[in-house]
Amino acid sequence: MIEETSKEVIDQRIQMAAEAYQFLKNTTIRERAAFMNAVADKIESLGDGLLTTAHQETSLPLARLAGEKARTTGQWRSYANAVATGIYAEPRINLPQPDQQKGDLRKYNVGIGPVVVFGASNFPFAFSTAGGDTASAIGAGNPVIVKAHPAHPETSKIMADAITTVVHEFKWPEGIFSHVTGTSNDIGAYLAKHKEIKAVAFTGSFGGGKALFNIANQREEPIPVFAEMGSINPVFAFQNVLQNRAEELAKEYAASLTLGVGQFCTNPGVFIALKGEGLNKFINTLKNEIPGITPVNMLHKGIFENFEKLKTTAIEQPEVNVIAHVSSEANEWQGRATVVETTGKNFIQNSILSEEVFGPFGIVVACETPEEMIQIAKQLKGQLTITVAGTDPDVRENQNLINFLKDKCGRLLFNGMPTGVEVVYAMQHGGPFPSTTDARFTSVGPDAVKRFVRPISFQNWPDEFLPQELKNENPLQISRVVDGEVNSGSLKL
Amino acid sequence: MIEETSKEVIDQRIQMAAEAYQFLKNTTIRERAAFMNAVADKIESLGDGLLTTAHQETSLPLARLAGEKARTTGQWRSYANAVATGIYAEPRINLPQPDQQKGDLRKYNVGIGPVVVFGASNFPFAFSTAGGDTASAIGAGNPVIVKAHPAHPETSKIMADAITTVVHEFKWPEGIFSHVTGTSNDIGAYLAKHKEIKAVAFTGSFGGGKALFNIANQREEPIPVFAEMGSINPVFAFQNVLQNRAEELAKEYAASLTLGVGQFCTNPGVFIALKGEGLNKFINTLKNEIPGITPVNMLHKGIFENFEKLKTTAIEQPEVNVIAHVSSEANEWQGRATVVETTGKNFIQNSILSEEVFGPFGIVVACETPEEMIQIAKQLKGQLTITVAGTDPDVRENQNLINFLKDKCGRLLFNGMPTGVEVVYAMQHGGPFPSTTDARFTSVGPDAVKRFVRPISFQNWPDEFLPQELKNENPLQISRVVDGEVNSGSLKL
Repeated sequence: MIEETSKEVIDQRIQMAAEAYQFLKNTTIRERAAFMNAVADKIESLGDGLLTTAHQETSLPLARLAGEKARTTGQWRSYANAVATGIYAEPRINLPQPDQQKGDLRKYNVGIGPVVVFGASNFPFAFSTAGGDTASAIGAGNPVIVKAHPAHPETSKIMADAITTVVHEFKWPEGIFSHVTGTSNDIGAYLAKHKEIKAVAFTGSFGGGKALFNIANQREEPIPVFAEMGSINPVFAFQNVLQNRAEELAKEYAASLTLGVGQFCTNPGVFIALKGEGLNKFINTLKNEIPGITPVNMLHKGIFENFEKLKTTAIEQPEVNVIAHVSSEANEWQGRATVVETTGKNFIQNSILSEEVFGPFGIVVACETPEEMIQIAKQLKGQLTITVAGTDPDVRENQNLINFLKDKCGRLLFNGMPTGVEVVYAMQHGGPFPSTTDARFTSVGPDAVKRFVRPISFQNWPDEFLPQELKNENPLQISRVVDGEVNSGSLKL
Repeated sequence: MIEETSKEVIDQRIQMAAEAYQFLKNTTIRERAAFMNAVADKIESLGDGLLTTAHQETSLPLARLAGEKARTTGQWRSYANAVATGIYAEPRINLPQPDQQKGDLRKYNVGIGPVVVFGASNFPFAFSTAGGDTASAIGAGNPVIVKAHPAHPETSKIMADAITTVVHEFKWPEGIFSHVTGTSNDIGAYLAKHKEIKAVAFTGSFGGGKALFNIANQREEPIPVFAEMGSINPVFAFQNVLQNRAEELAKEYAASLTLGVGQFCTNPGVFIALKGEGLNKFINTLKNEIPGITPVNMLHKGIFENFEKLKTTAIEQPEVNVIAHVSSEANEWQGRATVVETTGKNFIQNSILSEEVFGPFGIVVACETPEEMIQIAKQLKGQLTITVAGTDPDVRENQNLINFLKDKCGRLLFNGMPTGVEVVYAMQHGGPFPSTTDARFTSVGPDAVKRFVRPISFQNWPDEFLPQELKNENPLQISRVVDGEVNSGSLKL
């Protein structure tokens, strides 16, 4: 049973968050980084109970969960390190000049206020209660209110308690972090509508993310929503690579498609190529690979049922043929891998085939002509990732198509498969709508912090009243843009 | 007569802009900077016809227009210099590491696609056809379609022709820049709804900006809107400064309130202080200063009529008394300066008094207690600027109030007056809603470029196919974050 946090308690927590913001916005980047590292330590110190609880609640294997836990503490640490450098404070100083009227101007980024984070089901650690959204929002200087994902309530509680313990250890205001629970959508809508809430971060379905986006933009004071909502992550394969390594590519594709029972935002749901001998070899290899994939339980019953429904809908479309599938009866919530094929023309005409089927389901699109492939590229909706499977000559021959692909994704791969991310500066996890609501930001990597800041400029303030990041002496010794030049020293006044 | 550009021509220009984007997104930061500098040169070379035309269309004095022209070319040059440094390309490179799966990741910012810019009436050069929005959108790598402000059509055309000439000189696709005209709101709505348009920049009324915001967010693919919509730019004055220099402060305030017939977004429409001897002296000085201000024509009839209407509405509110006004009859569209006073209690209770009156109109709010001033600070809507008029001891005594003010503005001044901006990195021209639709960005200073970019990450691409900004050799010799460290050299592979 999941407790529904009452509106009274939610109101109280939001009020505490608003008060905590007054404290948090005056902390320095170093103080917040220290807090974040302490959260990482705390999560690391959690015993095996965390993993076994998460395993019971999500069916995810223990080894995967151990890896995800390490990634999650890694996120807190890497975002902490990034915040500590001042890269997201973006200090800019313009000293008085004889030809200017405004005098001394100093700008840096502060937090925006209380942020609501919605936990995701498919990453109970990395994209949930103590996940990247929470870490980046706090790093930016904002209190966080997590709406726990109802598919893993105990896991969420363990993580929430860990963060709360660190808040107490730091003697920071309790409103820095709150955890609310419930199964109804009303709670989410209530949070997103509340006037003290200043941003929303969400990972989940298009329906959920878009509903939050609409609520947020229809408020008296609109607020930003960072919703990651799904993607079919197309793979465009070209002639040379299909001729030379169709079988290897098929094995890579099958592994990526079925990794974690296909429950990745970056799952490669569509494979597009010219028909011919190479593609035949690719398909034949899939026929061998897919049936042998052992079906395992999906995250929860709702995801399983949705997978079965959308998979069946796709299969029932005209000119769609099943190439390969796991033929056993589904036991409990097992996600059985399935791959179908269709023509380029049919894929272009039937928009149902471009909808995400969350789980181990792929469509191979056999195009008649290179123009059909370009047509598909131009028509694609926004994606988290797009993969080009090809050789250097393939790229040279298909520059036009690849140029269009750049407009349709946040991450463009050259070979390899898109599943998985790296928590580094150069990662982009966010793409044009509808893969996310705001392609200008990432939800993975330290740059995720950027989502939750805004600049404030101080004009002619005495040094005494300026934040550490902007003081003459540069006590934090951070890199600042001073009169247009990058400078890490103190000001020469 | 202003020609209404037909829907057919608009469609054609948008299509050309979409095609030009395919070109522009593959230009380097240096190529775009060269273009921007050439536009600055071209505008600089325009003869006196530009100034006299603008003077006829806007009633703005020639000296002011000459200054604004210099500012406008300065904007193109300073944004060009900033773009050329790579600061907005934000290149980030993560080389393959033994413990990572994803290999080589390289991210940088590209343009987002065709941007619609709405010219403003009050800055015919700096915030209009060839203004900061156009410069920053092109600098970011986006074609621009300007909807000319109907109050200065000839001025707009001269500027549009200058940009178009440079497009031709560079042999760049004509769709890089388009100029459409008309007086109906339909054209603006049509542009904002078009699926090839990827962002909107607007400076003007709350009604206009919010309508565009709503249209943009209700599209099938929502797009960002950067609307600067107005601000009352409160001045909070404290005891020590009122005791020591009330008269001087009143003179500064009167000058700022009536500068340019009050037609600045940063006009200080409200002055808030504790009642007492200091405030009496301030008010008495205003009584001397304001009646002597020579009334001059406002920008156009619509602005004049709106000013008269909103001024009258404010004056007619209960407990509002006129302190000082220009008593002559209005001749043509003359904006006659007026200052009223009211109590803190009344200002808190009557929200009409917090609405912007665009023009030379100010409200002096006499508070009973410091708590009333805090209440006003907490209740304020978002502002472009807030000014603290005080001494160092005043600031120490009012930390709590000033802490709240930080949440309500983009630029916080310590003494001085808010009118005018400086086109530098440390400027913030943008504040919490409803002063703008997105407090995370500025429309003045090189950082304005940030509004129009999004990141794309390249995974494992051969050097040959990477943009110049991300190549191994670092041919542009720009600063990049390589494996977490800032580095301006070539990669050691």
